[in-house]
Amino acid sequence: MNQIQNIPYAELQLGQKAEITRQIDERDLQLFAAVSGDRNPVHLDADYAASTQFKGRIAHGMFSGALISAVAAMHLPGPGTIYLGQNLRFMRPVKLGDTLRVELEVIEKLPKNRVRLATRIFNQDDKLVVDGEAEVMAPEHKLSLDLPALPPIQIG
Amino acid sequence: MNQIQNIPYAELQLGQKAEITRQIDERDLQLFAAVSGDRNPVHLDADYAASTQFKGRIAHGMFSGALISAVAAMHLPGPGTIYLGQNLRFMRPVKLGDTLRVELEVIEKLPKNRVRLATRIFNQDDKLVVDGEAEVMAPEHKLSLDLPALPPIQIG
Repeated sequence: MNQIQNIPYAELQLGQKAEITRQIDERDLQLFAAVSGDRNPVHLDADYAASTQFKGRIAHGMFSGALISAVAAMHLPGPGTIYLGQNLRFMRPVKLGDTLRVELEVIEKLPKNRVRLATRIFNQDDKLVVDGEAEVMAPEHKLSLDLPALPPIQIG
Repeated sequence: MNQIQNIPYAELQLGQKAEITRQIDERDLQLFAAVSGDRNPVHLDADYAASTQFKGRIAHGMFSGALISAVAAMHLPGPGTIYLGQNLRFMRPVKLGDTLRVELEVIEKLPKNRVRLATRIFNQDDKLVVDGEAEVMAPEHKLSLDLPALPPIQIG
């Protein structure tokens, strides 16, 4: 994807949805540990994680938050969106290797371009792993942006 | 830091605090863009960002959420904590180069080892940039853990 477009406030409809699907891999857990500073072994050490109630490595809870925020920023409403708030409930663990479907839905249009979005993540078994709501200020105007290329990131 | 200890539920006190201080740099924005998938140019492209209301590059909102979650997971209550929920209000933008103080405070002890924490982030001007609350299940038992080393990460 090299360009993204937004959906301005006036065009947003109740019930409008956007979603992405993403499999959680080793690289995700290592990068999230590095950028957040959370190096708990339940995320990074297979032997330790196997000894916990989770029976294996799990993703950081807030990594799910990061995926939700990316769908809002990239797709619904997309570029120009200002993030005002987010509530998250972590319902079930996300395991290394899980495939997540991150789904946002417009549930209320508020004054001053503000919008309430339902923000939900399901795993490959269609179980709700994260539930919540976002409040954003949607962009006023149509906007189409070139996405900056990220420099290559090498791990190890 | 090579080892971390937790604070079990029974030892947590109302008003107890933990904090970290961290300056937000280029690497943070690039790693967060990579791991979240949010490559909006307001985070990555200095020229574009200068043309926005923010007058320069800003950090992803949920990067602040990631820092909060790391303080809970590493320090208060620390290892063994289970993240149940998080509410965030993004009050002011976080700019590239800002120095953030991420502060958690125990505000309520609930049944079944659950704890409510105030979660606040201040910038170098002591302005509140993120306000919110976390709910966690605190660990039952004292635990001291070796932190896994992260593999080196090279950007560019």
